[in-house]
Amino acid sequence: MAIQRPSIPKGTRDFSPVEMGRREYLFDTIKSVFRRYGFAPLETPSMENLSTLLGKYGEEGDKLLFKVLNSGNFLKGVESEEILAASESDNPVVLGNRICEKGLRYDLTVPFARYVVQHQNELVFPFKRYQIQPVWRADRPQKGRYREFYQCDVDVVGSKALIHEAELIQIVQEVFGALGIRVVLKINNRKILYGISETIGHADKMMEITMAIDKLDKIGIEAVNEELAERGLSAEAIGKLKPILELSGDNREKLGAITEIIGERSETGRLGIQEVTTILDYLDALDVTLPVELDLSLARGLNYYTGAIFEVKALDFPMGSICGGGRYDNLTGIFGLPDTSGVGISFGADRIYDVLLGLDLFPAEAGRNVRALFVNFGGREEIGAFKLLSDVRRAGVAAEIYPEAAKMKKQFDYAEKRGIPYMVFVGETEIETQTATIKNLATGEQSSVAFDRVADHLKR
Amino acid sequence: MAIQRPSIPKGTRDFSPVEMGRREYLFDTIKSVFRRYGFAPLETPSMENLSTLLGKYGEEGDKLLFKVLNSGNFLKGVESEEILAASESDNPVVLGNRICEKGLRYDLTVPFARYVVQHQNELVFPFKRYQIQPVWRADRPQKGRYREFYQCDVDVVGSKALIHEAELIQIVQEVFGALGIRVVLKINNRKILYGISETIGHADKMMEITMAIDKLDKIGIEAVNEELAERGLSAEAIGKLKPILELSGDNREKLGAITEIIGERSETGRLGIQEVTTILDYLDALDVTLPVELDLSLARGLNYYTGAIFEVKALDFPMGSICGGGRYDNLTGIFGLPDTSGVGISFGADRIYDVLLGLDLFPAEAGRNVRALFVNFGGREEIGAFKLLSDVRRAGVAAEIYPEAAKMKKQFDYAEKRGIPYMVFVGETEIETQTATIKNLATGEQSSVAFDRVADHLKR
Repeated sequence: MAIQRPSIPKGTRDFSPVEMGRREYLFDTIKSVFRRYGFAPLETPSMENLSTLLGKYGEEGDKLLFKVLNSGNFLKGVESEEILAASESDNPVVLGNRICEKGLRYDLTVPFARYVVQHQNELVFPFKRYQIQPVWRADRPQKGRYREFYQCDVDVVGSKALIHEAELIQIVQEVFGALGIRVVLKINNRKILYGISETIGHADKMMEITMAIDKLDKIGIEAVNEELAERGLSAEAIGKLKPILELSGDNREKLGAITEIIGERSETGRLGIQEVTTILDYLDALDVTLPVELDLSLARGLNYYTGAIFEVKALDFPMGSICGGGRYDNLTGIFGLPDTSGVGISFGADRIYDVLLGLDLFPAEAGRNVRALFVNFGGREEIGAFKLLSDVRRAGVAAEIYPEAAKMKKQFDYAEKRGIPYMVFVGETEIETQTATIKNLATGEQSSVAFDRVADHLKR
Repeated sequence: MAIQRPSIPKGTRDFSPVEMGRREYLFDTIKSVFRRYGFAPLETPSMENLSTLLGKYGEEGDKLLFKVLNSGNFLKGVESEEILAASESDNPVVLGNRICEKGLRYDLTVPFARYVVQHQNELVFPFKRYQIQPVWRADRPQKGRYREFYQCDVDVVGSKALIHEAELIQIVQEVFGALGIRVVLKINNRKILYGISETIGHADKMMEITMAIDKLDKIGIEAVNEELAERGLSAEAIGKLKPILELSGDNREKLGAITEIIGERSETGRLGIQEVTTILDYLDALDVTLPVELDLSLARGLNYYTGAIFEVKALDFPMGSICGGGRYDNLTGIFGLPDTSGVGISFGADRIYDVLLGLDLFPAEAGRNVRALFVNFGGREEIGAFKLLSDVRRAGVAAEIYPEAAKMKKQFDYAEKRGIPYMVFVGETEIETQTATIKNLATGEQSSVAFDRVADHLKR
């Protein structure tokens, strides 16, 4: 057989032991917080029926789905005409969907909705789950954007209570606190955005108004007003919007101002204000120290979020949103279970990884798995070292023995390259006295340690 | 949009929180042993280039690969004639390979080999890695056989030392010891099988002879000899084989008998005997208590294993092999790195899961994530409970609050259905006295516990 130059598909990655060590530190930190908050793990299959995925992510999303070719005779039942028609098309989607029944998971939200509906009779609601699994998107790969990447979602479904929003914010505080990343959490509420639009007489233009608010910082009020006029807002409406665009002060002050502006003009808007107020009240009562900032320009996921919207940014590192989410009132409707409200957030694992790396926040131990290398002198000494090694491992210390009686320099190099902090020497004398010589490779310091104390010595 | 009845592709599974809890217990147990033995985690992409996978698993394996349709115009550059020819075929493999550049990982061994070759200049050898990831096979689904399932491999590559074989056997002992499954490990060596074939003058018929040995128990010596004759073995050769078929006694006795039979007739055979002897010597020196049995009928992976062959079976549960592996001398050759010997074993996660379930060996805690439900009385009491809950969580206890002030029965039912062992009551009196009432749902027992002792009380 010809020799192949090995490579992997573009946009995918191998994770080396060092990277895995860091990733596990990150995921373990996140998971341990999720668990303390009562969320339980769930996993769904990598492949879903294509019908489950299609139409859930917009037209663009459909194009980015990875489809899995049916096994065996994938052309069975497909007419020649269909095939020829497809071969003349630039984007033979129809044929693709004929010859592929399955697709790779595009996110964790749709499979979660599918799971909840499929298992609705077994589940206890509110159902709290977290899910950490890879997803696949046929996006053009670029720096920081991959075709296979992990999502890390936490959701509660089947409860409208705002206590969950408060809990999710606590989770954000605890996760980033444990990781040592200083962050700000921005919060908004779709109902307030709708309420503002309704108040100024343009309930139909919520999206445009939100985008205008978003651009204020960059282009200034004049340009924003021009854009709003172009998009069909009357001069009167633009005038009414002005105080909202100029809102300032802390969260309570902003809420007060919006309350005044909306007045009795929008029931939805008032409900949104009340929701944000309740959430802030919880946070005050719980002494949440995370900076939480009401930001009316936050427009993430306006197509599906129906209440709170969250976004988290790192304060000390230039990076887009590293975590985000919100409340959705009809996630499961498409699969036949209406009126099931949920709220969740998603941690952007790859971005958080990059922030931790950029700020040098990974603990030195993450990725350094092995505490000690037992030197191999061969023969009876090898056996002596191997026996001591077995005891040390049983005591919970990760350690290994160099597999052959190679030259000391080679064994030393191996320990150094693998970042192993200790070398343990068991020679004739050591076996006789039942005392190992342990060398700390960082300091060069050598100690004589009784065999039955070696595990403890290495644990420190 | 039409409502869809949700389902998942056949042969795939959702893992519920309870199942996930058990799976994590299983994987964590295995991982923690791997780590203590100096193995570091590695992950490779779910998709590999199809060229990396094709031809590695035999003709049957090629058919079982899941192929991923190229995104965009997958028919670009494919001639109409090719397509029409394919549409007349029963199994349009050629077209499938034209329109799919990528395939889903079929096992962890080939991606590992690909990784080692691709990163050979960065790696330190011997390279010890473990890998726990799903693999996909388009097999016909049946009980216990899935199209997506996890493999759990541990390998060391770049060392011929037999100390690794001994370590892997220790790992088997520790993993199954920790899980509480009594097992036997069968060991064989391809070189011995070859040596026997060479000794009886049929070096070309190693496979047939091994299969005959394998059938001895089921069909008896007469039938086996008949079969061997049919397969072209001379009467003389069959006569020579007889004492080997009838080998009995412990490992050392068997080795002695084979040594005598092979004598000077096969260098390879003698090497194999020496390898097994060395491994057994290690195990004796290390006081390995795992039952290890030399079994010449063990023929697993004879196509790629070149030295030791391992297989592990549960003693108290009817189930095929739950773990197996061996030494391979040329895994990386196909990718351009010859002479790189490795040895590894793979734990069959799904089967081990079934054994644990069948023998009722999962710890009761596995899958029970939440220790306590804080009852929600609403208003000021809700805030009081929520505050105490936050402290308890910060102290490391997994707990939650019922999201609304529902009827007690509803909150109680929720705790019971989720298997939450404690309920914590924080009412007016409790807030005043800073003392919670904690109810143990299993015993019905109620205790009054000072707020600052609640976390400790729940940890017990």
